[in-house]
Amino acid sequence: MEKLEQLYEGKGKKLYKTSDSKLVISEFKDDLTAFNAKKRGSESGKGALNCKISSEIFKLLEKNGIKTHYVETLDDNLMLCKLVEIIPIEVVVRNIATGSLSKRLGIKEGEVLPFTLVEFYYKDDSLGDPIINDEHALILKCVSSLEVLDKLREIGRKVNDVLRPFFDSKNLNLIDFKLEFGMCDGEILLADEITPDSCRFWDKDTNEKLDKDRFRQDLGNVKMAYEEVLKRILG
Amino acid sequence: MEKLEQLYEGKGKKLYKTSDSKLVISEFKDDLTAFNAKKRGSESGKGALNCKISSEIFKLLEKNGIKTHYVETLDDNLMLCKLVEIIPIEVVVRNIATGSLSKRLGIKEGEVLPFTLVEFYYKDDSLGDPIINDEHALILKCVSSLEVLDKLREIGRKVNDVLRPFFDSKNLNLIDFKLEFGMCDGEILLADEITPDSCRFWDKDTNEKLDKDRFRQDLGNVKMAYEEVLKRILG
Ligand SMILES: Nc1ncnc2c1ncn2[C@@H]1O[C@H](COP(=O)(O)OP(=O)(O)OP(=O)(O)O)[C@@H](O)[C@H]1O
Ligand SMILES: Nc1ncnc2c1ncn2[C@@H]1O[C@H](COP(=O)(O)OP(=O)(O)OP(=O)(O)O)[C@@H](O)[C@H]1O
Ligand SMILES: [Mg+2]
Ligand SMILES: [Mg+2]
Repeated sequence: MEKLEQLYEGKGKKLYKTSDSKLVISEFKDDLTAFNAKKRGSESGKGALNCKISSEIFKLLEKNGIKTHYVETLDDNLMLCKLVEIIPIEVVVRNIATGSLSKRLGIKEGEVLPFTLVEFYYKDDSLGDPIINDEHALILKCVSSLEVLDKLREIGRKVNDVLRPFFDSKNLNLIDFKLEFGMCDGEILLADEITPDSCRFWDKDTNEKLDKDRFRQDLGNVKMAYEEVLKRILG
Repeated sequence: MEKLEQLYEGKGKKLYKTSDSKLVISEFKDDLTAFNAKKRGSESGKGALNCKISSEIFKLLEKNGIKTHYVETLDDNLMLCKLVEIIPIEVVVRNIATGSLSKRLGIKEGEVLPFTLVEFYYKDDSLGDPIINDEHALILKCVSSLEVLDKLREIGRKVNDVLRPFFDSKNLNLIDFKLEFGMCDGEILLADEITPDSCRFWDKDTNEKLDKDRFRQDLGNVKMAYEEVLKRILG
């Protein structure tokens, strides 16, 4: 499969048409952005690392019965995916309080939540991806019914039930992560990426952050952290 | 009933103990605040107007089967109420988009919502009353179960079903309003106030704002607007 016309350039990936109208190629970029792109950077090789990490995770999820857009990994930073119609909701799944949750609601950083929390954010950069409730999602026409939202929560929790023990076995604490979903032939597919750009991983022994927070908080060694995550996934 | 020891002084009201440990006196103040008390003002007589308006509305709601903390109106700006344990959630009910909804989600000011929207905000001034979803409300221990949240939504909609046609008959468009609830002997009671401080009213013919937005937006004639609302309620 070859990249044809570019469909979209986002902050972290480019999307290309292919000769098959149902398939797209996702190209993982080295760019890093945070705080709604107010902070920008780049790490050579980050795109390839994210592509490999995402590929491994999508394969693991498929093996566990979760339907994803993943088809195959083509090259260093190229992933072949099913074209979906993205549901404009970022589904955030949280095990441990940190980041915007701690800031917004005053829940102590690092506090273990009493249950896995699922939040919806409206995918709209110009509005800064505001948090929404179920009724907002209907009013904004993100989904056609409350049942779809229940389904997103259900799949979000299922992804967590697979990934949390998986990363635990790699000595990584899965703190939280962001998922995107899309519709394809009437089915909800997990789409986009699952990478240290979209997840938070803390080393289980040291609590060292091994994800994009190293970039957000200027902790240094960003690429080394992503390499470490890939190494542990493969190890 | 006489005011005894002051229990609480808020931005818009003071609460006093009475000789009956199950009853409190709510004193409506002339103070006006907005934007989490960053903007402050005062209108002599506003407290008494709000007390009368709130009394009328609580009586109307009771007549329509909605349980409230209202007992009786004692004096110009004094209301006798059942003491409740306030649920720390502001329940916002919206018919028409405006204010923070329009700003946060980009929904055009004045747009009629496809259904009556209910939102929950965490009552915490130091956090700026952040918007929350059902799971947050559980994690923050605002309520003991999801059923209570469903009940709050149900009562919120029922209040709207009573008030919207009532104000419509007074040539006022009920745009949105904020409710607070409390627990009393295992029952959920509608508490706090229902006033032009906590509701938005637009004149049906002119769309003139007859509520606290006159203060928020420096439109002038704040007290005249509150007087007009009371006049129409009584008329
Ligand atoms: N299988 C897919 N089919 C169609 N679109 C997809 C698919 N997977 C992901 N996307 C979308 O492709 C884009 C990927 O680019 P990227 O992640 O860089 O975007 P972004 O900068 O995060 O911004 P945004 O997600 O707000 O568009 C995203 O818009 C994502 O929702
Ligand atoms: N029946 C009641 N029993 C006990 N408390 C009540 C009752 N009705 C209202 N309250 C509480 O009394 C206070 C009224 O004061 P006011 O409305 O001025 O507070 P506020 O400045 O809005 O701040 P906040 O609501 O955040 O405390 C509120 O805290 C309200 O929740
Ligand atoms: Mg993205
Ligand atoms: Mg108040």
